[in-house]
Amino acid sequence: MLNKPRLLTPGPTPLPERVRLVLAQDMIHHRKPAFKKLLLETEERLKTLFGTSQPVIPLSCSGTGAMTAAVHSLFLPGEKVIVVNGGKFGERWTKIAEVHGLEVVEIRIPWGQTVSVAQLEETLRHNPDAKGVFVQLCETSTGAQHPVEALARLTRTRDVLLIADGISAVGISPCPMDTWGIDCLLTGSQKGLMVPPGLALIAFSERAWKKIRTVPASCFYFNMEGEEKNLLKGQGLFTSPVNLLLGLHESLTMIDENGGLEAIYRKQWALTCMVRTGVRALDLELFAPKHYAWGVTSILLPSGVDGKKLLSVAETEYGVIFAGGQDDYAGRMVRFGHMGWVDWADVTAGLHALYRSLKAAGGYVASRDYLEQALDAYHRALDVEPGRIIPEARS
Amino acid sequence: MLNKPRLLTPGPTPLPERVRLVLAQDMIHHRKPAFKKLLLETEERLKTLFGTSQPVIPLSCSGTGAMTAAVHSLFLPGEKVIVVNGGKFGERWTKIAEVHGLEVVEIRIPWGQTVSVAQLEETLRHNPDAKGVFVQLCETSTGAQHPVEALARLTRTRDVLLIADGISAVGISPCPMDTWGIDCLLTGSQKGLMVPPGLALIAFSERAWKKIRTVPASCFYFNMEGEEKNLLKGQGLFTSPVNLLLGLHESLTMIDENGGLEAIYRKQWALTCMVRTGVRALDLELFAPKHYAWGVTSILLPSGVDGKKLLSVAETEYGVIFAGGQDDYAGRMVRFGHMGWVDWADVTAGLHALYRSLKAAGGYVASRDYLEQALDAYHRALDVEPGRIIPEARS
Repeated sequence: MLNKPRLLTPGPTPLPERVRLVLAQDMIHHRKPAFKKLLLETEERLKTLFGTSQPVIPLSCSGTGAMTAAVHSLFLPGEKVIVVNGGKFGERWTKIAEVHGLEVVEIRIPWGQTVSVAQLEETLRHNPDAKGVFVQLCETSTGAQHPVEALARLTRTRDVLLIADGISAVGISPCPMDTWGIDCLLTGSQKGLMVPPGLALIAFSERAWKKIRTVPASCFYFNMEGEEKNLLKGQGLFTSPVNLLLGLHESLTMIDENGGLEAIYRKQWALTCMVRTGVRALDLELFAPKHYAWGVTSILLPSGVDGKKLLSVAETEYGVIFAGGQDDYAGRMVRFGHMGWVDWADVTAGLHALYRSLKAAGGYVASRDYLEQALDAYHRALDVEPGRIIPEARS
Repeated sequence: MLNKPRLLTPGPTPLPERVRLVLAQDMIHHRKPAFKKLLLETEERLKTLFGTSQPVIPLSCSGTGAMTAAVHSLFLPGEKVIVVNGGKFGERWTKIAEVHGLEVVEIRIPWGQTVSVAQLEETLRHNPDAKGVFVQLCETSTGAQHPVEALARLTRTRDVLLIADGISAVGISPCPMDTWGIDCLLTGSQKGLMVPPGLALIAFSERAWKKIRTVPASCFYFNMEGEEKNLLKGQGLFTSPVNLLLGLHESLTMIDENGGLEAIYRKQWALTCMVRTGVRALDLELFAPKHYAWGVTSILLPSGVDGKKLLSVAETEYGVIFAGGQDDYAGRMVRFGHMGWVDWADVTAGLHALYRSLKAAGGYVASRDYLEQALDAYHRALDVEPGRIIPEARS
């Protein structure tokens, strides 16, 4: 069928045409003036995006590379850290930290749920020697959103660094690093930023930088002090991923020209309301019922529905590409991405593909007006002043 | 001036139009069938490129990332290794190895010269406990080409692994990994492969893989066993740099359709002869007189010539972008790149820009027919059977 492909996964996301055209530009050299101008302009916009006065460092790697950079830069082997593990990416913090020789205390959270402030407080009390707390803003494997703003209130008053994986959150929902008191925030290019994967971004608070300067290098490629020094000159430490940075410059310009971050957050909130309303109207179970991300919605499938078949029908018959569940939830979950270059019409298409492929995969659906309900929810959410919405959605 | 920009640096190199158009494609998902097909097709061509039956692993990082991956994967802290240090990138092997806690024995080579087989043999004799030898095929900072084929004859018969940085060599001059007996060969996307930077490639010999399986992980991001396992399924271990891989698939297809590797090597050899003849006709000093790379020619400037001015005039007045010297040679050297998507006409333009900007920067040039001499050399070199040329150019 000549359906248009619609990538509704939690990253990578579709690319705007103007970003794609920039990606096709001929090469420029990463040590020459045109590149320096590009990088320094990008840097200013990245500071706004991260909500920080500190440098935001571009790295040539995936998001996991930036997570590795954070662990190796901030901690010495043998130091104790706390990891909030509520899914596949929480688990990844643990693995990265253990490979680096850290002592990890895990707060295990059932998939789909979020850590509470009380849980972290208790864990900090039992581990007064812990030097860091690792968490996801959005746990991409479940669609749950940990209450990072509230967690930061605990860490910022203690001698403990808070490291937040913002891979599925930066450019999707608010996470102003300096205001909240996050010590390290990182993300990848292929989610809210509408650029292909292969470029990661990472920033550190002042006190995190102080710590970095005391930690000897343990992996040459991830050298934050070297990157910081070169960034001031408009260069990367090693060869920069030039065309992805061209794409990022363009996408940040595009965001600026279309209402800035506030417009993005408002749109993401409205799309989230839209998907959740549509999913409820289809009598499906939202996997992260309480604290949820603004860029991906996880749906637990009823028993009897073949999740693999659902994903396959959605793609082959309707052109809609969802992600499935990971690990224990493979074949039992749909992860409906609505981040990046995705709008209300794509989400409408996604909900219809979900409805049709659910039936094809053995599900029963009675609803007739799930699309109307979803679109109503979208418009209602858009109309609300963002300042009012944002606190509600926080923990 | 509306000169066309001509990037004649030793990477990144210009991009073919068909690669650029593929870079502009909309995103595909890195865990879905279309990507798997792309990766598995690419993999077959990469094995031909590397001259190996072993998997060639794509990594989301710069070439330095792949160098780091090699060091961390193959060696345990405390092990002794030998580094051939004849320039900035030889020095980089030492730094990466020392950060990982290896004991490094350096063979120091003056910049512009290459290691001899006798030097390595002696160093191996004095260090029978050395577990590895690190070398560059092309030392990009000097344009010298170490005799890796001959060095491998020493290492392959001993219990010592040979790790070759092929960043400025793979897809430029022959380095058939299995035939020569290289244990680890790596490269980046932005040189001979005509793709933007941000993608690295690495392969290991059978005995290197045996060693890898005994070395515990020390940096989570560089996990060669995990990459190998996922590659068989047509996936990366983490999120792959999708659009760079699309570009690589296209550039490898383009190479296949235009005479394959033999045609590339023949062209690179002819361009090398062309540049060197032109440079000699201009009475300039070739920095690597004896064993030299096929993708970059370094020129030592006469005293009294302002190298910075030369580079600036070449760019602003003639649109030609060269690289300068590094470290001690900053301001005293031109590195004339002729790798990747560069042909005889670009090199002609480069030689003329060199001539004009040399005069503008205080140099004296008598020659009238340097272009004719250079083009004659190009055509003569092209006509010779590659099988005859290749051994000559080896050490």
